[in-house]
This record gives sequence, structure tokens and C-alpha cells, in this order.
Amino acid sequence: MKWKTQIHNLKSYQPGKTMDDVKEQFNLDKVVKLASNENPFGCSPAVKEYLADHALSHAIYPDGYAKELREGTARFLGVEPGQLLFGNGSDEVIEIIARALLSSETNTVMAVPTFPQYKHNALVEGAEIREIPLKGDGTHDLDAMLSAIDADTSVVWLCSPNNPTGEYIRKSELVAFLDAVPQHVLVVLDEAYYEYVVAGDYYQSIDLLPHYPQLLITRTFSKAYGLAGFRVGYGVASTEVIGKLEPIREPFNNNALGQGAALAALADQAFIEKCKEENRRGLQQYYDFCEEKGLKYFPSQANFILIDFGVSGDEVFQFLMSKGYIVRSGEALGIPNTVRVTVGSAEQNDEVISRMKEFLGARLTQ
Amino acid sequence: MKWKTQIHNLKSYQPGKTMDDVKEQFNLDKVVKLASNENPFGCSPAVKEYLADHALSHAIYPDGYAKELREGTARFLGVEPGQLLFGNGSDEVIEIIARALLSSETNTVMAVPTFPQYKHNALVEGAEIREIPLKGDGTHDLDAMLSAIDADTSVVWLCSPNNPTGEYIRKSELVAFLDAVPQHVLVVLDEAYYEYVVAGDYYQSIDLLPHYPQLLITRTFSKAYGLAGFRVGYGVASTEVIGKLEPIREPFNNNALGQGAALAALADQAFIEKCKEENRRGLQQYYDFCEEKGLKYFPSQANFILIDFGVSGDEVFQFLMSKGYIVRSGEALGIPNTVRVTVGSAEQNDEVISRMKEFLGARLTQ
Repeated sequence: MKWKTQIHNLKSYQPGKTMDDVKEQFNLDKVVKLASNENPFGCSPAVKEYLADHALSHAIYPDGYAKELREGTARFLGVEPGQLLFGNGSDEVIEIIARALLSSETNTVMAVPTFPQYKHNALVEGAEIREIPLKGDGTHDLDAMLSAIDADTSVVWLCSPNNPTGEYIRKSELVAFLDAVPQHVLVVLDEAYYEYVVAGDYYQSIDLLPHYPQLLITRTFSKAYGLAGFRVGYGVASTEVIGKLEPIREPFNNNALGQGAALAALADQAFIEKCKEENRRGLQQYYDFCEEKGLKYFPSQANFILIDFGVSGDEVFQFLMSKGYIVRSGEALGIPNTVRVTVGSAEQNDEVISRMKEFLGARLTQ
Repeated sequence: MKWKTQIHNLKSYQPGKTMDDVKEQFNLDKVVKLASNENPFGCSPAVKEYLADHALSHAIYPDGYAKELREGTARFLGVEPGQLLFGNGSDEVIEIIARALLSSETNTVMAVPTFPQYKHNALVEGAEIREIPLKGDGTHDLDAMLSAIDADTSVVWLCSPNNPTGEYIRKSELVAFLDAVPQHVLVVLDEAYYEYVVAGDYYQSIDLLPHYPQLLITRTFSKAYGLAGFRVGYGVASTEVIGKLEPIREPFNNNALGQGAALAALADQAFIEKCKEENRRGLQQYYDFCEEKGLKYFPSQANFILIDFGVSGDEVFQFLMSKGYIVRSGEALGIPNTVRVTVGSAEQNDEVISRMKEFLGARLTQ
């Protein structure tokens, strides 16, 4: 077979243990997963109402243009419907961008560590990958990213708040970066955790679009909106940029129930506000724990927190898993001595913090 | 922006009129859509039971490995779980194959007219496209396709039954073709309409896999299984071929409800048998109409029929739409004087045939 050269080095996605696997392995009654930054409060009740009220014929193809969701989202954001590109999760928006712009003739600039799908898609397309280490405080090193850009750079990926640090790009820094980036570069600003942000010096990225034609913002219904199971994300940019990307989208990439569920979820902003508040309270639980135990952590604008335990994250991960709490080890995320914990409900946070204290106590007595 | 050269020529998917648009435009109470080869009998009641019984948390990511659906499908087909690649519809399986194998350095061979996503993805990847016209009877010209293959050919696409003709490749022809195809070529056999086939000289393609390591079969839950709204399709090949493709798949490409719905649907083969029988009766209604009116048609192994009205398909399409029946014009499908009609329920077929008779009558009196 004539596999593309770059395909040979790619590794398959390794499925993690399911909650049932963990229950069985450790003989547990209950397992709490705080590993994938899902919303512990589920989704808006409006979604369940939508699903109950809409006996869709599952046999019918979804609306390939996602017309109602498109128009609803455009109204909500204050943009034109033609400025939106809907994906099967924002993962697919990233993939579409990669297919349009990345090749062995271009390079692409991104932070490290950051959301892994930018790199993955660059590998698939055979583009040169320029990874710029985060600064010590977990923020993007925008000066170094700018220096890495040259005439062959096609896409720069910014993730704010960044996964896995939860840190964010300040408004003044973003504007200065956009002012300095050459026009031939598409700047992708991934705002998967946008709805959780409270920082005063964050930006309204949508307002920047008219000024920066090379800016594309991605957002998702998988995090605060609590619809990860449905797979709905989107990109927002100028109609010119979206017009180039749209033909690459598979004609029926957004499933029918997902379109309806996302629109119903969008209409319930009170739910989002409530989740945002609960998330801040939850983060404070972790901050208090870290301060008490003298652990380094990254202040977060997202619904997760990266905590430095001073030992391999795998060790913390294994201990917590044996007690029924699944988190992500920093070993897999590129910051080895940390774990990333999704902020759960207040009760879940208390529970996992107790287990973390047990872990620290057991280490001390060794 | 550094758009890939080939991206400039791509056109966006043009959304068709919705059923509501047609209702409004022509002031109709009822509109019947027989344009997308959906199952007029919906899906198995087992799917509705699954949906009612499984209050999934929509906030949780789907199983990225589709473990239960994978194992269930593998058992059903008699293959290993590692021989399966699940896509967001078989559209996505086609896309993944294209990303792995097509580039400006390779060419790809396909019939014309056939399912348009092979060509679309080849265009996105910048591969040279070699389109081999169907024979007059609507079947693949496998000899000519074989002659078009050279050292730079990476993928050959076969569609059987073929969309839009409904014609199929005979077993002896397929085997001879596979025997002759060079080992460096991946042969994709798209069997989206497999469940509807009744021809005695069709093949069990799965049985061919151990003998032909360069064969990959695609199937879908969007047609006979009646789950087009959920977007679930899959590829079957050797573990070696799937192992190369699997890393390109986005980690959470199959939505959670779709995975469960497909597994529930697979378990109800009695539903599939019933739909298959109804479909044969429906096709006979169209055959009888064509014979009576002396219209040329293609005998079909699928759930649609391509009828030659001797005038532009657009004309027939417009007339039928004004009466509330949406079909596909052959102008869009590459066989201009035809329309493609999805076989509906017996009543729907009677209705649209009456309207077709009206159209023919109106033409005669012009």
C-alpha cells in the first residue's frame, strides 16, 4: 500500500480504562471520573425536554447545514451564519483546518504542552511542527511563538484557557500578538473552556474578529454545556476564511440530535452561569488544599486544575484510581509531576481531596 | 493564508430545500422526501427501547473505542474487533482512507457516476482522479478500471450496489478484479446498500477478506438500519490495514447515542429482513410503472431506482416537488435525463407514481 510516509509513525488512540474496568479491578462500588473535564452537573434540563419532545425520525439524514443551530448560534454570538463552521466536536474543526492548510511544505506553531489534537493533525498532514514550551507560570510564550513564525508558517494554535494548565492569554498580549502576526498565518484560538473564564483581563474574542481577518476561534458544547456525548463544536471566523474551510466539511458531519441538543443548551444561559459559579467554588476547594499542603498548582480559568505533587503523576493517578477516582496523570500530558483533576461537584471535590491527603500521608510515612 | 492549492477550487455543500421550505413554497400540507435513500420504515423499535432505557449522561465523552459496538459488530460479521474502523457515517471512513493514502503524488480510480465523496476527498488531498464511465447497463467497467491503475495508484473505489444506478458487481467479476489488482493498491468496496441485495450472484464480501489483504469494505447504519440521523458507519479490512487507518480517526468521532442505537439496531435482523422484502415489493411497483410507460430504468439491488424520463431530470424533479414529492434529479448525479427515487412505503410509491403519470400526461399534451 502507498501509505503516506508520515502515517507510519502514528500511534493509535489507546482507550483508557472504563469506569467498569476500574470498578472490577479494584473491587469498588463507586467510581468517580474527574479525568476528561466534563461538566459534573450534566447539561441543561432544556436538553432533556428537547429530546423528550422531539421524536425525530432517526432514519432521516441530519440537516447538513445545521441551519437552526447555525442561526441560533450566530444570533447568540452576534455574527453572521456564514461565519460559523460546525464540527463533530471542535476536534473536527481542528481537523478541517489541518486539511486545508497543513502539508509537508508548511510549518505550524503551537505551545507545549497544549491540547494534543493540533499536533496530531499536523503529523497526519506531514507538516513541520514547532512546539514552543509554555512559560513557567503555564502561560503561552507568545514572543517565542512569534519568533518561530516564518514565511512557511501556515497555522499558529493558541489554547486559552490552555489545556492542561488552565492558564490564559491576557487581552493586551493577545492583541499585541495579533498585531504582529504576518497576514499569511491563520491564528486558531481554541476557547473550549471559554464559558468558565472569570479573569478581568480576558477578552471577548468575537469582538476581535472584524479587526483580525486571520483569526479563527473554536468553541465547543462538550465542556460547560455538558454535551460531550453528542459531539458538537464550532469555529468562528470571517466569512472568507469559513468559506475556504466549509467545502472540506463532510456534508452530514453533525448528528441530528446533537444539533437540537446544542441549540436547546445554548438557550439556557442560566445553567451556564450556575455551572460557572459552582466551578469557581470547586476550584477554591483545590486551591485551599494546595495552600494547606504547600503544593504548587496553576490558577485555573477552566474546569480543571493541574497540581504538582512533586512525584510522578502516574503514582498519584494509580493511588487515586485504586480508591475509585480517575484523574489524568501529567506524565501523559507533558508535565510529569502533576495530575490534572476535573473540578467536580463540591462533594466529589471533597472526596478526591481526602484521598489526595491520604496519598500525601502514606508518602510521608514511607 | 497558505491554503493548499487544491482547496481554491472546492465548492461548499449546497443545502437542499428543507421539507418546510417546499411546503411553504408550494402551499402544500404534506411533503414526502424520497431523495436520500433513507429507510421509509424508520428503524427497529429496539432503538427506541434503547434510547428510552439508557438515560446516558450526555455530559460524558463517548467511548472513543466504541468497545461494545465494535465487539457486537465483530461477532455479527465473524471478524476480529481490530478489523473494524468506525466512522461518523461511512463518509468519515472514506475521509480517513483519503487522508492516509491520497496526495498529489498518487492517483485514484473510481467509476463515474458514483457516490461523490470519493472524488470530493481526492480533490481535498490533491490526488489525480481517474474516473471510468459506467457501462451502459449501469455497472462498473472493471476492465477499464484495471487498465487505469498504474504504479502511482493508491486507492480504487468500487460502489456495489452503485449509487446512483443501483446496479452491482457480479461475484465472478469482483474476484477476477481482486486477483488482478496490484498489491500496492487499496480496493475500497462501498456496500452502503448491502442489506438490500437479493441477487444470487452477489458475494459475501467479508468472506473475501482473508484472501485479499488489499480489500477494505465499508458499510453503514444510515440506510437499511434507518439510523442516518445518528451518523454511524464502518470499514472492515485486515488488522494491518485498519491498524494504519485507526490513528487518523479522531478519538471521539462516534457520538454516544449513535453507538448504542447502532448496536440495538444490529440485534434486530428481523426488522432488516422485513425492510428488504418491502423494498423488493416497492421496486416492483416502479418496474411495473416503467414497463407500462416504456421508460428505461436500471434494475436495482438498493433502496432506490434510477428512471430515465427522456427529458432533463430537473424538469421531473421540479414537477414532483411542486406536488410535494422530493426526489433527486439526475442532472446533479451525472445522468441528466433521469431521476433517482428512494423506494418508499407502498403508499408513498403509489402516490409518487401517480404524480409521475401526471407529469408524463402533461408532457404529451404540450
